[in-house]
Amino acid sequence: MSEFRKDPVSKRWVIFSPERAYRPSDYSKKDIADESDEGKYCPFCSGNEKKSGNEILVYPKEPNREPNSPGWWVRVLENKFPALTPREKLEKKGIGIYDKMIGLGRHEIIVETEAHVKCISELSNTEVEKILLAYRDRYVEIAQDKDIKHILIFKNYGKDAGASLEHSHSQLIATPVVPKRVETEINGAKDYYKFRDRCVFCDILSQEILDRERIIEENEEFLAFNFFASKLPYETWIMPKVHNAFWGTISKKQIKELAKILKNAIKRIKMTLGDVDYNMVLHTSPINISTKTDEIFHWHIEIMPKLTKIAGFEWGTGFYINPVLPEEAARSLREVKLEKN
Amino acid sequence: MSEFRKDPVSKRWVIFSPERAYRPSDYSKKDIADESDEGKYCPFCSGNEKKSGNEILVYPKEPNREPNSPGWWVRVLENKFPALTPREKLEKKGIGIYDKMIGLGRHEIIVETEAHVKCISELSNTEVEKILLAYRDRYVEIAQDKDIKHILIFKNYGKDAGASLEHSHSQLIATPVVPKRVETEINGAKDYYKFRDRCVFCDILSQEILDRERIIEENEEFLAFNFFASKLPYETWIMPKVHNAFWGTISKKQIKELAKILKNAIKRIKMTLGDVDYNMVLHTSPINISTKTDEIFHWHIEIMPKLTKIAGFEWGTGFYINPVLPEEAARSLREVKLEKN
Repeated sequence: MSEFRKDPVSKRWVIFSPERAYRPSDYSKKDIADESDEGKYCPFCSGNEKKSGNEILVYPKEPNREPNSPGWWVRVLENKFPALTPREKLEKKGIGIYDKMIGLGRHEIIVETEAHVKCISELSNTEVEKILLAYRDRYVEIAQDKDIKHILIFKNYGKDAGASLEHSHSQLIATPVVPKRVETEINGAKDYYKFRDRCVFCDILSQEILDRERIIEENEEFLAFNFFASKLPYETWIMPKVHNAFWGTISKKQIKELAKILKNAIKRIKMTLGDVDYNMVLHTSPINISTKTDEIFHWHIEIMPKLTKIAGFEWGTGFYINPVLPEEAARSLREVKLEKN
Repeated sequence: MSEFRKDPVSKRWVIFSPERAYRPSDYSKKDIADESDEGKYCPFCSGNEKKSGNEILVYPKEPNREPNSPGWWVRVLENKFPALTPREKLEKKGIGIYDKMIGLGRHEIIVETEAHVKCISELSNTEVEKILLAYRDRYVEIAQDKDIKHILIFKNYGKDAGASLEHSHSQLIATPVVPKRVETEINGAKDYYKFRDRCVFCDILSQEILDRERIIEENEEFLAFNFFASKLPYETWIMPKVHNAFWGTISKKQIKELAKILKNAIKRIKMTLGDVDYNMVLHTSPINISTKTDEIFHWHIEIMPKLTKIAGFEWGTGFYINPVLPEEAARSLREVKLEKN
C-alpha cells in the first residue's frame, strides 16, 4: 500500500510506492525496457488483451465486441504496478514534525492503438482524436470524486523519457493533493492575476502572437510555440486560444484541431532532432480545491524532448541551463516540410 | 554571451547559454562522455595542467611549484564551456510581458586529485579535507561580490548523473538571482520559523535523532540520514548538528568530520547499490539578499543516487514516486561494514 509523505521544508508530497519497487539488485544500471515478463510479446498489442489488465474504458470498433478482446481504438486500463489505488477514505496522520497520508488515487494506462505502433505521429488524425477523447472522458469521470485534487495526464516516449514499454500509450495519475509544481504554477498565475487582472497564459499567448519568432504552427483553436523561457531545448507548448482552466471542458471541434497540431508538433520535432525520446504533459488546473482557478489558470500541453541530461545543477536549484534559444528552436521546427494530412 | 530569462508563471530564471551548445546533430542520442577533444588523454590528470585552463586556486604539494604544472592537491579552474562568466554590470531588460538579463556569474571546476581517480570514496581523508577546504575558500571569496546572490557547489558522478569527464571533480556556479528551488526552500523554512520560532532543519535533526530508524551514521559534528520524505531512493542527507545557514562558516574541525562522514556515505551507497551514478549538492543559504536567513536556513549536503529515471510524472508535477522507504534504505546503508579509516 502506498503512502504520501510531506517534506516540511518545500511542502512537497512524495509518493512512497513499494509495489513499484524492483529488487535492490535490479536497480543500479539496468534498463527497464524489458519489464514485460517474457520480453517476447507486447501486452498492449491486439490479441493480448486478457493479459494486460481490465478495461476501465474502451472505444470498440464494432458495437458487439466482447470486453478484453481485439477490435478497439483506445483502451484504458488499470496500471499493473500502480503508484496509487482507489480507496474509501483518506487517512491523514502526524509523526512528530512530519505528516503522512495513505495513498488514495488512480493510476491508469491509456493504450493508444491495437497495432504495435510506437509514436502517435504515425497514427491517423482520427486515431489521435480518439486518444484525446479518452483523456477527456477519463478526466471528466475521475473529477467527480471529491477526494481527487489533481489529474495528471502524460506520456513517456522512449527509454530515456522513462517508458518501460514501447507500444504507444499514455498514463493518468489522479492525486488527493495538489502536486508541488502545479501549486507553484497556480500561485504564480494568481500573483499575476492580482497584479494585472488578466490570465498570465492569455498574456503569454498575446505576446507570442505579437513577437511571432517563437511560433511553430497556428490553427483556428491552438498555438504551438517554443516558450520564451523554456527550461529545455526544443520544449514545445500547445495552448488553446480561448481561455479555459480545465482540460475536461475541451470541445469536439477543439479535439479535432488539437489532434492535428499535436501530431504535427511531434513530427516536426522528430524531423529536426531524429527519433528523440520525449515527455508530454497536460497542464490543467487542480479541481475540488478551495481556491477558484477558473480565471487564473489556462490548460496547455508541454512536450519536452530529452536532449540534455538533468544533472546536479538543475537538481539542486530548480535552475535550468538551456543551450538553445527558443527563437532558434522555433525556426528549425517551423521550417520542417510536412506532408498534407 | 549567456542570458537569463524569467518564466512569468513560475518566476523561475532559466540560463540560456549558446556557448554550451553542441551542433543539432550531436544532440539526439549521443553520449557526452567523450567531450575531451582527443578522447585519449584526460585534461584533469597531472601533466596536462596547461591544457585544462587557468588555475583560480591551487593547493600545491611543494611551496615552489610553478603555476599550471604538476604537484598539487586540488586545482580550481575556470570552466572551458562556462554557463556564466564574470562581468562588470548586471543589465536587466523587459520585453513585453517578459524579463531578461545578461548572464553575469561564475562557473568553476574543482579538480579533486592529480591521479585519474573517479570517486572521492577512493581518496584519503586528508585529500577529501582539501577538497572541502577548496569549496570553502572559493565560496568565501565569491561571496564578496555583492552581485552574486547564490553559490551552488555540486558534483555529478557518472554519465547518467550528467558528468562529461570521469576524473573526480566538482563544479561551482554563482548566480545573480536566487534559483527557484532554493527560493522554495527558503520560503518553506521561513513559514516554519514564523509558525514555530525554530529552524525547520534543526527540528528535522531532532526528529531523526529521536526516531533513529533513518540514521546511517553519526559523528560529533554531523548526522547522515535518509530524509523522511526523500524524493529518490537512497537519497542521503548530511547535516551539521550545530545550526548555521552559510557553508562558508564551516570550521576546520567540522571539515575533518565532514570528510569522514561524506566519504563513508558514498562508500556505503556503492557497497549497497554497486558503482551507481550520483549527484551531490551542497544546499546553502542565498547571500547578499534583503531577507535575513541566518536563523531560518541550515546548510546541508544531499546525495542523490541515479536509480529511477525522472519521467513525465515527476516532470509535470514536481511530484516524486519513490519505491523505497527511507527506513529500508537506511537499514541497508547502516549495515554496511566499512574498513577502519
